[in-house]
Amino acid sequence: MENIYASIITIGDELLIGQVIDTNSAWIAQQLNKIGIAVKNRISIGDDALEIKIALDFENQNTDVILITGGLGPTNDDITKELLCDYFSGKMIVDQKALENVKYLFEQVYHKPVSEVNLKQAEVPDVCEVIPNRRGSAPGMIFKKDGSIFISMPGVPYEMMGIMEDVIPYLQQQFELPAIVHKTILTAGIGESALAEIIKDFEDNLPKEIRLAYLPNYGMVRLRLSTSGFDKVKTEKAISDQFLQLKKLVKDYMVVDDDETMQQVLGKMLLQNKKTISTAESCTGGSIASLITSVPGSSAYFEGSIVSYSYEIKETLLGVKKETLEKYGAVSEETVREMLSGLLAKMNTNYGIAVSGIMGPGGGMPDKPVGTVWVAVGSKEKQVVKKFKQRFARAKNIEVTAMMALNLMRSFLVNELVN
Amino acid sequence: MENIYASIITIGDELLIGQVIDTNSAWIAQQLNKIGIAVKNRISIGDDALEIKIALDFENQNTDVILITGGLGPTNDDITKELLCDYFSGKMIVDQKALENVKYLFEQVYHKPVSEVNLKQAEVPDVCEVIPNRRGSAPGMIFKKDGSIFISMPGVPYEMMGIMEDVIPYLQQQFELPAIVHKTILTAGIGESALAEIIKDFEDNLPKEIRLAYLPNYGMVRLRLSTSGFDKVKTEKAISDQFLQLKKLVKDYMVVDDDETMQQVLGKMLLQNKKTISTAESCTGGSIASLITSVPGSSAYFEGSIVSYSYEIKETLLGVKKETLEKYGAVSEETVREMLSGLLAKMNTNYGIAVSGIMGPGGGMPDKPVGTVWVAVGSKEKQVVKKFKQRFARAKNIEVTAMMALNLMRSFLVNELVN
Repeated sequence: MENIYASIITIGDELLIGQVIDTNSAWIAQQLNKIGIAVKNRISIGDDALEIKIALDFENQNTDVILITGGLGPTNDDITKELLCDYFSGKMIVDQKALENVKYLFEQVYHKPVSEVNLKQAEVPDVCEVIPNRRGSAPGMIFKKDGSIFISMPGVPYEMMGIMEDVIPYLQQQFELPAIVHKTILTAGIGESALAEIIKDFEDNLPKEIRLAYLPNYGMVRLRLSTSGFDKVKTEKAISDQFLQLKKLVKDYMVVDDDETMQQVLGKMLLQNKKTISTAESCTGGSIASLITSVPGSSAYFEGSIVSYSYEIKETLLGVKKETLEKYGAVSEETVREMLSGLLAKMNTNYGIAVSGIMGPGGGMPDKPVGTVWVAVGSKEKQVVKKFKQRFARAKNIEVTAMMALNLMRSFLVNELVN
Repeated sequence: MENIYASIITIGDELLIGQVIDTNSAWIAQQLNKIGIAVKNRISIGDDALEIKIALDFENQNTDVILITGGLGPTNDDITKELLCDYFSGKMIVDQKALENVKYLFEQVYHKPVSEVNLKQAEVPDVCEVIPNRRGSAPGMIFKKDGSIFISMPGVPYEMMGIMEDVIPYLQQQFELPAIVHKTILTAGIGESALAEIIKDFEDNLPKEIRLAYLPNYGMVRLRLSTSGFDKVKTEKAISDQFLQLKKLVKDYMVVDDDETMQQVLGKMLLQNKKTISTAESCTGGSIASLITSVPGSSAYFEGSIVSYSYEIKETLLGVKKETLEKYGAVSEETVREMLSGLLAKMNTNYGIAVSGIMGPGGGMPDKPVGTVWVAVGSKEKQVVKKFKQRFARAKNIEVTAMMALNLMRSFLVNELVN
């Protein structure tokens, strides 16, 4: 038994001029990893026949499975299908099922007349196996050459994800696959190099088949142990022992010992304890509420948010005193305390988060430079207030602030719900 | 004079298992395009010495400039620096400026003791030119080989972006570069293939040096014309004439004839007309407010938002009648109308957006399936209400809904402010 390797080729000029961020590759890589196929590399190229051929040749030598997205649209800039037809020496034929699907989509779902351009979507090379696309008009296609499997899918993420539902079991049938095991710890409140110092001995003594990665993001660091093996029980056992050790070493900074997000962890705590939460946001502009509600089922514990971008709304909707704003300013301990107490009164939730800060690029002052943020979390009975200093550009400052506010709330709850 | 080509290599196991989405490549590609360097391909590989060498060899044959990010961290999984030292036959030396920078960062910015691990960040191969990193401890490095330029930068986006401020003028000095011109139209309310039908003749008659791309995103489609040339004036003129034609053809669907976002377009309209806005959000959970406030300076026209996730908050904070909620449900025309009027009363803004819907995966009902959304936009005097039906998974449903709500508000304002 040997490892099976894949590569991902994403096609489209928009990827090379940076107009679109490639999210497909990351998602596909996750799905392949879960079933024990390791991704060796990912490559993005333009809608350029020669470059696509070079990439196909290169990956064909390198890997067992080549997943291709993009360039299957109905418009002239999309050349992938014609090119694959040529590359695998086929000729175009109409696929009856794909044709029925296109007609169905336009007549029943979009309620629009089917055009000639759309009907061309039902044409496929006669040398491929067709994978139906239930979410759009361009079907997926499977080709085989020199022992490698090539799978072509549309670049629209939602359509690609639908087709992958058929691709995954297909690949599991084609190969005998090892178990790939990842174990992840989410830490907060400590940097990458400080973590590295703490776990230096552990890292130096790690068996060579287990890999450790540091994944910093949003001011937090994920630690991930990875390994693979054909004996699933043995593989799981080997990594579990190491994972236990690692957890002990970083316990003071651990948010969760799973591949979960901060908002999922917080949501679970609230749900299990039947508590509710709300937010009062100034500089984060609704980002914290939006993170909390990104979790399905969050309506069970999230009541709502008051985004108070102006002084007036802080006064009228959150009951912050005019004198407080005038004396201390909107970005101050006093203001976030009053925002929190006003919020809890209005929303009547068990807990609340209140945030006010300066995210930049404008708005900085000598005593309150860009990046200054005050966060208050707590209940009617008890509050914790903390000042943060962000060092990034606007978008990143907002992201990191939202995440740190959620983490402050989480820490508060850990103490609150245990005691 | 000939075109200069670049490739981008991003390094890190996290990119291959899909734990992190590669945003660096898109950003770097944008910067290179602006100065007339075309990106030929992008490749992502793991922290694996052999794979990195294969990629370096491959790109060295292919392109003039190779930009590399990642693998420069202080921890053991980061192998890029050692590998580059070896690849370019150098040996490690301490760079004095980088050393001073590391000490400065820890003593003055992070207020933490410098560790041995951190000091190693100041070591560089003696065969490279160092680019200072003012935002972190790992410096950038420039290598030359066989007429190609290799530039290595950290994978942390904020640090990479800082180093690129020096890389761009450096590359402009090294090459005589053509002008690359892109012109973009953002359209909404029409699909990719329907657009293609409208502009079929235009597209068929486009001069071959001008390329047209369709870039669908968030239920909107961007149309982009691109060309390049060493005579800047001639290049600009050629594309401008075509761009005017294209604008005429799609004028009924055009949001803006520039590479701007929906929230930027809306913000400009409000700012120029000195009008204010607020939002009342249920299913979007603060996403619309968060999009509006992602634009710097949005405090000039955005007052705030009431995120009302529960029935109670819809009643108490937005004044939606209990009978309305009981009779028509939270996801109904009647409810969003009352949310909007309650919002405008509370926030006292010129305009408002109110949204209520079912984003999934749970919460669907026979008469109101997942994806049903009601949006109301307008002023105290005039409102427009529209029902949408989203077809995606939760996160995408929220994104598309937020964007469609902003677009409905924008269309309303176009009529309102012109008349």
